[in-house]
Amino acid sequence: MQADTQPFTTRPLNWEQLTREAADLLNELFPLCRSLTGDGVRQTLARLQQIAAFELLEIPSGSQAFDWQVPPEWNIHGAYLETEDGQRLLDFADNNLHVVNYSLPVDELLTWEQLRPHLHSLPDLPEAIPYRTSYYTPDWGFCLPHEQLQAMDQGLNYRAVIQATLAPGSMTLGESLLPGASGQEFLLSSYCCHPSLANDSLSGVVLWALLLRELQANHHRHAYRFVILPETIGAIAYLAANQEAMQRLRGGWIPTTVAGPGPFGYKHTFRGDDLIDRVVLQTFREQGVEPILYPFDVNGSDEKQYSAPGFRIPVGTICKAKYYEYDEYHTSLDNLDFIRPEHLIDSLKLYLLAIEKLELNRTYISLAPYSEPMFGKRDLYPSLGGTIKQKAADLARPHAERRYQIRLETEAGIRGDSLDAMRWLMFYGDGATSLLQIAERTGLPVRQLYETAERLRQHDLLALLEEEPEARP
Amino acid sequence: MQADTQPFTTRPLNWEQLTREAADLLNELFPLCRSLTGDGVRQTLARLQQIAAFELLEIPSGSQAFDWQVPPEWNIHGAYLETEDGQRLLDFADNNLHVVNYSLPVDELLTWEQLRPHLHSLPDLPEAIPYRTSYYTPDWGFCLPHEQLQAMDQGLNYRAVIQATLAPGSMTLGESLLPGASGQEFLLSSYCCHPSLANDSLSGVVLWALLLRELQANHHRHAYRFVILPETIGAIAYLAANQEAMQRLRGGWIPTTVAGPGPFGYKHTFRGDDLIDRVVLQTFREQGVEPILYPFDVNGSDEKQYSAPGFRIPVGTICKAKYYEYDEYHTSLDNLDFIRPEHLIDSLKLYLLAIEKLELNRTYISLAPYSEPMFGKRDLYPSLGGTIKQKAADLARPHAERRYQIRLETEAGIRGDSLDAMRWLMFYGDGATSLLQIAERTGLPVRQLYETAERLRQHDLLALLEEEPEARP
Amino acid sequence: MQADTQPFTTRPLNWEQLTREAADLLNELFPLCRSLTGDGVRQTLARLQQIAAFELLEIPSGSQAFDWQVPPEWNIHGAYLETEDGQRLLDFADNNLHVVNYSLPVDELLTWEQLRPHLHSLPDLPEAIPYRTSYYTPDWGFCLPHEQLQAMDQGLNYRAVIQATLAPGSMTLGESLLPGASGQEFLLSSYCCHPSLANDSLSGVVLWALLLRELQANHHRHAYRFVILPETIGAIAYLAANQEAMQRLRGGWIPTTVAGPGPFGYKHTFRGDDLIDRVVLQTFREQGVEPILYPFDVNGSDEKQYSAPGFRIPVGTICKAKYYEYDEYHTSLDNLDFIRPEHLIDSLKLYLLAIEKLELNRTYISLAPYSEPMFGKRDLYPSLGGTIKQKAADLARPHAERRYQIRLETEAGIRGDSLDAMRWLMFYGDGATSLLQIAERTGLPVRQLYETAERLRQHDLLALLEEEPEARP
Repeated sequence: MQADTQPFTTRPLNWEQLTREAADLLNELFPLCRSLTGDGVRQTLARLQQIAAFELLEIPSGSQAFDWQVPPEWNIHGAYLETEDGQRLLDFADNNLHVVNYSLPVDELLTWEQLRPHLHSLPDLPEAIPYRTSYYTPDWGFCLPHEQLQAMDQGLNYRAVIQATLAPGSMTLGESLLPGASGQEFLLSSYCCHPSLANDSLSGVVLWALLLRELQANHHRHAYRFVILPETIGAIAYLAANQEAMQRLRGGWIPTTVAGPGPFGYKHTFRGDDLIDRVVLQTFREQGVEPILYPFDVNGSDEKQYSAPGFRIPVGTICKAKYYEYDEYHTSLDNLDFIRPEHLIDSLKLYLLAIEKLELNRTYISLAPYSEPMFGKRDLYPSLGGTIKQKAADLARPHAERRYQIRLETEAGIRGDSLDAMRWLMFYGDGATSLLQIAERTGLPVRQLYETAERLRQHDLLALLEEEPEARP
Repeated sequence: MQADTQPFTTRPLNWEQLTREAADLLNELFPLCRSLTGDGVRQTLARLQQIAAFELLEIPSGSQAFDWQVPPEWNIHGAYLETEDGQRLLDFADNNLHVVNYSLPVDELLTWEQLRPHLHSLPDLPEAIPYRTSYYTPDWGFCLPHEQLQAMDQGLNYRAVIQATLAPGSMTLGESLLPGASGQEFLLSSYCCHPSLANDSLSGVVLWALLLRELQANHHRHAYRFVILPETIGAIAYLAANQEAMQRLRGGWIPTTVAGPGPFGYKHTFRGDDLIDRVVLQTFREQGVEPILYPFDVNGSDEKQYSAPGFRIPVGTICKAKYYEYDEYHTSLDNLDFIRPEHLIDSLKLYLLAIEKLELNRTYISLAPYSEPMFGKRDLYPSLGGTIKQKAADLARPHAERRYQIRLETEAGIRGDSLDAMRWLMFYGDGATSLLQIAERTGLPVRQLYETAERLRQHDLLALLEEEPEARP
Repeated sequence: MQADTQPFTTRPLNWEQLTREAADLLNELFPLCRSLTGDGVRQTLARLQQIAAFELLEIPSGSQAFDWQVPPEWNIHGAYLETEDGQRLLDFADNNLHVVNYSLPVDELLTWEQLRPHLHSLPDLPEAIPYRTSYYTPDWGFCLPHEQLQAMDQGLNYRAVIQATLAPGSMTLGESLLPGASGQEFLLSSYCCHPSLANDSLSGVVLWALLLRELQANHHRHAYRFVILPETIGAIAYLAANQEAMQRLRGGWIPTTVAGPGPFGYKHTFRGDDLIDRVVLQTFREQGVEPILYPFDVNGSDEKQYSAPGFRIPVGTICKAKYYEYDEYHTSLDNLDFIRPEHLIDSLKLYLLAIEKLELNRTYISLAPYSEPMFGKRDLYPSLGGTIKQKAADLARPHAERRYQIRLETEAGIRGDSLDAMRWLMFYGDGATSLLQIAERTGLPVRQLYETAERLRQHDLLALLEEEPEARP
């Protein structure tokens, strides 16, 4: 077998160990106060670098990025709200959501009327601390449970202290470029700007690092661009700095909110039926799992930047409890109790399986195009004819039982009838139908088609075409 | 704002007054005996000219129009059927449906056997007078309730008198050409040949005149061609006389049967998914009303002439109680009790809203195509980030309550999230996606998209393209 | 009427007589032991030549056909299995399924252990003899009911005798080429290699011969290529010998399993929406019959050879109790009790109706394209206008009552409104819409459209285009 047909194969992985590793990372990184900039991000990325190698980039405050400017760097060392007589009501040390992200430093004694506009709560979710930011409007504030806010004495004065700095510095990004021979490059982008919020999107950050390590350890034909950055300004600054390279990207994903309860979800790319969408949907189909399907929405994460008219990179998101869709979203209830590392690992498997399909998606052309070849003389056919054809077993295994049991194909083994796969491959061997298309039309798994095609190639019945199917035009 | 972006805006209209005006017109015009030709048509058009200005065209009898000839002019002054001893059974003065339209003059004493072939009734609807015509086969006849026919004494002789003239004259048409700068022209064609039939189509005639007045009072980018004419021969003669101009028409509507009870309906153009169809369906969607959808049918009204192979103008019909679909159709039961002026005005609003979408449908191109622009620094963004995204309120308001409460967008106000509209407009700012397409994909109303696009244009974030989207090729 | 518009018309056929004829053929041919080669096939084809004329082709053993070789010729004169003491358990004379098709000659005394690997039965269908073949692996064997196998004494010795010859000879095919003027050629291919199995596919063999006779007796515009051959190797050898001609074929059918109980079925061509598929589906629609729809599957019969990448001939199958889909398939239970000659004749009608649609599918262009012509002056229109339009009667007659009462259009008469047909034909007279397309869009039967179009042609309202709609590119 030549190098260019070496299949993408997930190393035999110890999923239990991976799950424990994910749990440890989640526990360790959850308390850090991340933001658009600052040391919380740097600590997070430094820890991830122990998982998988990537470069750090620092973009100075004030740098122009298209319509935007990188903001000053924000760091925070402590914050609290007390009554005038020293009764502490809120402390940043307890939960970094208590402080509006990017708050100006403050140390003031205020009346209730002066303080009130700086307090944020959620009347509909009275026990939760909301997550609030004020990146581009200089302001400060505290976030607290609504029931706590209602209990405050409006006749008192309050001391508000935020020990923060907002000063020229830099914004920190991580990047790892994995070269590939196919000429096609894919993006994996995650955002690291959220403080103590578990599903959105510490789960995505951890998955990103584990996925990067897996790709680094594996032979792959395509190039992959892994980036981790603050949402919006990070993606925009990265696009601005890599404009030409980004315009060549074939597609990608933004892993986020990957470890919550409830069903899997998939947010489509803006194309809706791009190669990116199709490998994901084929993955779900092969797993017998029905995700909630979300159409592309310009609201969301950085897919809106990557898919802007000047770039138009199709970017999707596989998730588990999608942002916006659960009540705990952007509150202190999106914590380590809300998510499970097992879910994160299941999502990791889905990303690996989707990438596997990108890797295995080749086009073959028949060397025996004028009728079905004689499989029998090559020992590829059952010798006794006339047996009643077994109907292909339903590929979709029961849904309810296995929703959280995502299995890699290499674990699940080959399904269906190998003669079926041979026949379909010879039939579609017109040099214009990719393995993914054959899988979509026949219900046969991509990996089985790939392995069968390679076997037929060894028998000189198929030849592999050089062109990449569905390459970026 | 330059002239060419001046929006189409319905004048603040007094709908109660309009409804009273429609009621008066219906009452006044209903008794007139209209036909393909003759003074009934001329009186009708003269009354409508008091509502809105349009030209009268007289096409002489015998004029050739493609495969057809304009028939002689028919006028009728009276008619009755009596027993030989003078007992009057039917009188044209009571209901002009009693006489077969285009009957030859007659004054004869007839036996029952001689008379019977000239009598028309509806056994299945025994109390109704049917509507019958004999335009091209010289004949005469009376129409009467079946129960009355059955009560007639077959032993008597009857005197049949029809005081009609069928002689060289002319066929009368109305026409108003409203110029527009866009280079696109649309057709509004109504037929005025039906005698005392209220929904089909005195309602369409009245709507046509009110719509014409509204378009005349408004700034509009497109040209509009309003014609009112007898069905079939009128449309064919008009096409023959205006062949070149008609082949340039982009599309249009035939308002008819617009004031009956029951649900709204829409008969599609022959293309099925033309711009004409899409603005209508988008209108119904924005109003939260589900019309009965009728596919194009070569049976019907003059859309079959306008859409003939030599012209292929896509023509649709918004209606309320569509012709063919109600039992009272083409009988004396399709009278002023059957319809309501409120329904007519609701239909008028729907036509106005569909035309508004034609007017507002522009294409913009992003001047900040490489990522979402920073709305915040332009004061276009809420300053405090992190708030839980409100799910877009369902645009479709409850169906049952509001079926007859069609509201103009300018009354209903802007719905949804203005940030949504800005983001989608910037995202689709590729210079190839029209506002109508964005509305169809996002569920946002066209008017909101238009107004938001204009705001973004004022901030130099979008530019307006010159080309008309979906222009006639 | 010129020769090229002479319609395809099924001769007035005596269906009762045809049904008796089919019954006789089924009875006569069922007992013959057909195989890939040998005298059973020759006797079968000789009998069919008494029904319709066709040529015999003999392809010598060892001939190369693409990846395959024609096998030696197999003939069998007798076979039995006895206990050592002469008690006969199985005899080829009772049922030729008892012997594995293509068994080597054998005459041996065997222990139970030696015999057992040569015995085949169906544990799930214990009373049935399975059908087994060993064409390309030299072997021998007996097939028997599982209950009989279980009753055998494992302590005895058995004598196995198969008096067969496997020697150089030839493979026998039948072929009839029916020329046509249209430049389009269609394939009707049936397989004659199955021994005593009634539905699969003696029924197809008999239908093939009756259909050939019908086409030979009729005027037809298209060319038809009728071939009857052993499955797989026969089709491959035929393709190899006629490569160029086969690549020009427009499409075709493989009649098989056409006389079983249960509903009609249709297996699509690999294109799914080819002309071949569309005339079949239109036939079912006009008959008001809902078949079970099977997508193309590379498993099945010779469509996989004809549709291979080097030929890509779209080939479908109308069937009644499709192969694979009934329990009796490929067992002794697929016998003359399983099928009914009436079903075979109904299937024959469906094939004739589908072919009729190919024959009548023409494209006309309007000679009066600028509006509807005046039908009245040509006596083509009801003279009294204004009548309430009759809704087109539902073409689909009740399903349950008539599932087995397939009627030719010429028997069923014209349905629907003739004015409808005239209007639609004039409307679609753009020279780009075939009668089949008009039928699909309007629900009007193809034959009615054809006859109406010819009437309009006689009135100089339509002209017939020379080009064949949907010709093979």
